[in-house]
Amino acid sequence: MEEKFKTLSDKLKEIKNISSAVALLHWDQQVNMPPGGSQARAEQIATLETMAHELFVADEMGVLLDDLAGTDFAYDSDEASLVRVVRRDYDRERKLPAALVEEMSRTFALGHQIWVRARAEKDFARFQDILVKIVDLSIQKAEAYGYEDAIYDALLDEYEPGMKSVEVNRVFDALKVELVPLVRAISEQVDGVDDSCLHQNFDEQAQWDFGLEVLKTVGYDLARGRQDKSAHPFTTSFSINDVRVTTRIFQDWLSPGLFATMHEGGHALYEQNIAPALEGLPIADGTSLGVHESQSRLWENVLGRSRAFWQFYYPRLQTYFPAQLNEVGLETFYRAINKVTPSFIRVEADEVTYNLHIFLRFELEQALLEQRLNVSDLPEAWNAKMEEYLGLTPPDDALGVLQDVHWSGGAIGYFPTYTLGTILSLQFYHQALQEMPDLPEQFQRGEFANLLGWFREKIHRHGRKFTANELIERITGAKQVEVGPYLAYIKQKFGEIYQL
Amino acid sequence: MEEKFKTLSDKLKEIKNISSAVALLHWDQQVNMPPGGSQARAEQIATLETMAHELFVADEMGVLLDDLAGTDFAYDSDEASLVRVVRRDYDRERKLPAALVEEMSRTFALGHQIWVRARAEKDFARFQDILVKIVDLSIQKAEAYGYEDAIYDALLDEYEPGMKSVEVNRVFDALKVELVPLVRAISEQVDGVDDSCLHQNFDEQAQWDFGLEVLKTVGYDLARGRQDKSAHPFTTSFSINDVRVTTRIFQDWLSPGLFATMHEGGHALYEQNIAPALEGLPIADGTSLGVHESQSRLWENVLGRSRAFWQFYYPRLQTYFPAQLNEVGLETFYRAINKVTPSFIRVEADEVTYNLHIFLRFELEQALLEQRLNVSDLPEAWNAKMEEYLGLTPPDDALGVLQDVHWSGGAIGYFPTYTLGTILSLQFYHQALQEMPDLPEQFQRGEFANLLGWFREKIHRHGRKFTANELIERITGAKQVEVGPYLAYIKQKFGEIYQL
Repeated sequence: MEEKFKTLSDKLKEIKNISSAVALLHWDQQVNMPPGGSQARAEQIATLETMAHELFVADEMGVLLDDLAGTDFAYDSDEASLVRVVRRDYDRERKLPAALVEEMSRTFALGHQIWVRARAEKDFARFQDILVKIVDLSIQKAEAYGYEDAIYDALLDEYEPGMKSVEVNRVFDALKVELVPLVRAISEQVDGVDDSCLHQNFDEQAQWDFGLEVLKTVGYDLARGRQDKSAHPFTTSFSINDVRVTTRIFQDWLSPGLFATMHEGGHALYEQNIAPALEGLPIADGTSLGVHESQSRLWENVLGRSRAFWQFYYPRLQTYFPAQLNEVGLETFYRAINKVTPSFIRVEADEVTYNLHIFLRFELEQALLEQRLNVSDLPEAWNAKMEEYLGLTPPDDALGVLQDVHWSGGAIGYFPTYTLGTILSLQFYHQALQEMPDLPEQFQRGEFANLLGWFREKIHRHGRKFTANELIERITGAKQVEVGPYLAYIKQKFGEIYQL
Repeated sequence: MEEKFKTLSDKLKEIKNISSAVALLHWDQQVNMPPGGSQARAEQIATLETMAHELFVADEMGVLLDDLAGTDFAYDSDEASLVRVVRRDYDRERKLPAALVEEMSRTFALGHQIWVRARAEKDFARFQDILVKIVDLSIQKAEAYGYEDAIYDALLDEYEPGMKSVEVNRVFDALKVELVPLVRAISEQVDGVDDSCLHQNFDEQAQWDFGLEVLKTVGYDLARGRQDKSAHPFTTSFSINDVRVTTRIFQDWLSPGLFATMHEGGHALYEQNIAPALEGLPIADGTSLGVHESQSRLWENVLGRSRAFWQFYYPRLQTYFPAQLNEVGLETFYRAINKVTPSFIRVEADEVTYNLHIFLRFELEQALLEQRLNVSDLPEAWNAKMEEYLGLTPPDDALGVLQDVHWSGGAIGYFPTYTLGTILSLQFYHQALQEMPDLPEQFQRGEFANLLGWFREKIHRHGRKFTANELIERITGAKQVEVGPYLAYIKQKFGEIYQL
């Protein structure tokens, strides 16, 4: 049995080596690749993804998993967890025909390149044809996976295993009831917060250096990672010991670079703190995108936009930008980075309006997959929903339907995980606070090791061993995603800032 | 038959996609990878190389090649050339056991990481154990390939197909007779050239910008390439449309960055100008390292250290470094970049002493492979040969036996191609000059398109379709590497500079 387990591990590690090469091909595409490389890159990714898929879905793998299913490893053991999680992946991936995998891979890689140009030219028409193909392939993929209630569930399951759209709707509805009136109430006193201190001339290199200082001091290990620039910030890993983040920096606006760095840093802390014993195995990864996002949102918002965090870091930030910030008090800065304003771009949205951007995308994705909406009508539908949720009409498609990278790479069903993660960040943090009530005082002193250690112990080290719901129950006792802590946090924080 | 040809092409393209991913894994390792990533990277490279090897040596490939051997495509056609070249590769690679390929791959990738640290610490002892393993694996590889006269030939053939060490000896002996006395004669009047103008404070960014300007104006297409920094400059390609170079820059010395950029640019021009019809096939590559080096040496030395070239570029260079160079005349600069001084580091050596560094390495490699020399005695043997050829004893191993990356990555048998390429650069250029006698006048005007066009037509576009000897004969009518043009060039150029 031990020998069979080694055979399984070796095979899985080989496949993971291929997937890691694919991850590097993607990282390079977004960080370094000259434009001429796009066609060949799409072919390279397609070949490797197809190969990884074929090796994984081989009958032999199924036989090994069958043989190992009956072993008496404890549920929590690495061994039992590996077999359990890989079985789920296997049953799922077996449903996809190899030809579909290859076509998706090539189309999604090309889609990314076309999207980059279309966005630069603010021209949805350039992107439309490939998006039609992407949606069509996504529908084929969903049909191949199969589903009970909604076609959306088949794709959502890839990013948030076990989650259904009916459950997303329950959560989102509970949010909408509170957030929509809250945004309205805040909008009525929008003059209450002045964020002009963030819109000055901030040297790009100094922004970069400060961001790296923060990453280092909160615990990101640069001997096992690095930061680069890309059009759309992201985190990727090729090993527990090579976890990379990207950011983007605007010279005339401090927030985007700063919070993208903190956000991706949160993802990277998760990946760097997976138990070394899981290295090279497919369970050395985040368990779901929602749980992953709970970590990025924690560092970006719960800490990164908190008063306690900046009580420590603001004096440091002022040393980087004395001319810009020495006359700006901490309280002014704190209010500025928490200003609530309906805006066009999701990734730059504040904590309150952010989720409205997600509701919009979730609804449009459902309509596309259920074929109630044509791709050609998408820009109009986007703009209509922007008006409905945020009271804004994008002046062009780059500020509207073309803003996000996801669809171009075939990631339909992904967006809800941002809001699920946002809610989870508070559900988890609420528990951490109960166990360590002096956390905010620690942050004021620049001490983050206890918080990081708590998350390492409760979440990071397990990789994919436990599902999101298992983690929620183990950590908080709750059976599912609960919006309570998040809504309490939002109402308390923004109620104070806007004196509601 | 056409269908079989398509089957062959498709299979070969798939394998090339894997090899291109391996090339990216290597590029990233040298350009970007954080130190923590090294172990996983070695595993990733090993998995992919083994997989490419196994797909290539499959029996099925042999059957396809047999079936296609009898077709009546013309010798020069892409089709016949593909079958011919791939047959040679196939017969060769079939001789390597898969286990050896995997072990070499992993060992060589790790060897690189260990070498980086050993060189930084100037400590050969740190590198010794892995080098013993690398030499042992290289011997195993040579034995698997088989050879007639010398074990060295089995490895040399990988880099310079068809070349034998007896032939290398013929060429090297012809050089030694002339070069050793020439270096001695020059050494006696070493005060004749003052290169202090190159040893000033040169802003790194300005060096970088000037290097890129040169690359662009000589014809390197940055939409299909990019330049980065690495410890050891190199060129790699993931497609005809994604050909990348690296360089390294010293703030206190202008030459290394400048000439590394030109050298790698020469390699890159070759790769970027391969015929688009060959894209994705294994013949879309340089035909041998010697021919590749003929292109890099051409741009680095024959042009890059010529008076005509700098008659155009020196005024441009002065605009980048007015404080350092405005008082330095063109003739002083020309003599400075051509100063001959025996020195420790091969890649920084002048045109005359450079080959002595190669003779040394070639002799040590032969001794290691024939087991006449133990790895533990290598530093001493290195230093003895440095004394013999260059009259110098390296003060430490970083300036001695640890200076080059090649052995750490398993590249034994590679060094002679540098000198072969140097000789070829003149053999080819001599012919180009006969056909276009006004080339130097064109260079003075900053016009390089005719020269590049000539090489594109005669060499670049063919990729690997013709062997080095076939190219030599097609281009010059000679049957082999001829040292005449090179020696005439060296004697004329340095005779003038040193008034011999």
